[in-house]
Amino acid sequence: MTDTDPTSLSPHTRNAGVDAAVSAARRVITALLHAGNNSAAEMNDVAAQLSGVADYLDEHAPTAEERLIDMWSGEGVPRHGPVSGPENAIAPPLFMEGLADGSVAGTVTLGLPYQGPPAHVHGGISALLLDHALGVANYWAGASGMTGTLTLRYVRPTPLFEPLHVTARQVGVDGRKIRTVGAITARGEQCVQAEGLFIAKDLPRPGSAVADGPGAD
Amino acid sequence: MTDTDPTSLSPHTRNAGVDAAVSAARRVITALLHAGNNSAAEMNDVAAQLSGVADYLDEHAPTAEERLIDMWSGEGVPRHGPVSGPENAIAPPLFMEGLADGSVAGTVTLGLPYQGPPAHVHGGISALLLDHALGVANYWAGASGMTGTLTLRYVRPTPLFEPLHVTARQVGVDGRKIRTVGAITARGEQCVQAEGLFIAKDLPRPGSAVADGPGAD
Repeated sequence: MTDTDPTSLSPHTRNAGVDAAVSAARRVITALLHAGNNSAAEMNDVAAQLSGVADYLDEHAPTAEERLIDMWSGEGVPRHGPVSGPENAIAPPLFMEGLADGSVAGTVTLGLPYQGPPAHVHGGISALLLDHALGVANYWAGASGMTGTLTLRYVRPTPLFEPLHVTARQVGVDGRKIRTVGAITARGEQCVQAEGLFIAKDLPRPGSAVADGPGAD
Repeated sequence: MTDTDPTSLSPHTRNAGVDAAVSAARRVITALLHAGNNSAAEMNDVAAQLSGVADYLDEHAPTAEERLIDMWSGEGVPRHGPVSGPENAIAPPLFMEGLADGSVAGTVTLGLPYQGPPAHVHGGISALLLDHALGVANYWAGASGMTGTLTLRYVRPTPLFEPLHVTARQVGVDGRKIRTVGAITARGEQCVQAEGLFIAKDLPRPGSAVADGPGAD
């Protein structure tokens, strides 16, 4: 799966430096959780260094208004989303691929930042991944919308530190109503099932008319 | 609402340096998204600095096994969760309070890292906040469990950059089944409604017998 692969539904690289900085920020997030309370690190020094980086970035950033217009100006998959965005350090990231059968699929391994029950994925994080995956499936199927209802069924605990297979597929379009299903599978067994009802409607893009692209819900 | 307030369901401060470092990491996450593609900042330098911080933290961290035991050793609200954890830079954070009527409530304002549709909250992030809030409501009501089914109804788009009021309340316990509801409100209007069915069951804590505390689902 590369940027030129027509089945890739991953965001494209627009600025390698940004992507590298965000990848490093993800390492910091995870390292802070691994360090925790009993770390031998000088945490006040770490705080000062990170504050310095944030100050430097803020001093060189465009205005929030300019930035909102810019982040919604491109075509294809947004780069800022909390699941797949290369600009978003919160994103694991999970990249999805469009398959010939109309479904979408991706694999991700989650670490400590995504923990709910001991050594397992937070149920709300599973919901986040699946809401995104359903949105990508809608985009791949050619009929997108905003989430109206999302139902999650937690079949068994979802493990951290193991590859999770995330799949989704649009199952019906009835007027403006779109039905989409998805699941998270680990070790060949379904952990979480999702069913979504989407409404074909978009919020306006900043500085433009209508939003599209997956992951916008 | 302070650490000594009996109605506070927020995690306690155990290490001010850790909390400061995580707060600074949150600033970095947001600043990276504000900077984005058109920033005048030297992003490769930022990447190098952040990688240096991650390396330093990793060199001083306990083993993953020790850390998992430690992070589950305390009582009360876990410090590592992706919604309220002071150790988790992914967390906005949302802090909740237990009210005399049996419900729980908290207020949070979300920025660019949590964006779905233009200038609005990602539907999966709303699901994450509500799954957490329902878990906290169960803890406050004295009967907790793991999420079995979670249903989200998206009534209207949830805005970024504005105070969101998150509330939840346990509405029934029938044997091992627990029913809990919640909502996200902005400008006095409900944006997202949640209904959860929880099963009174916990995963074992690393190095211990049974997990408890809110936010563990």
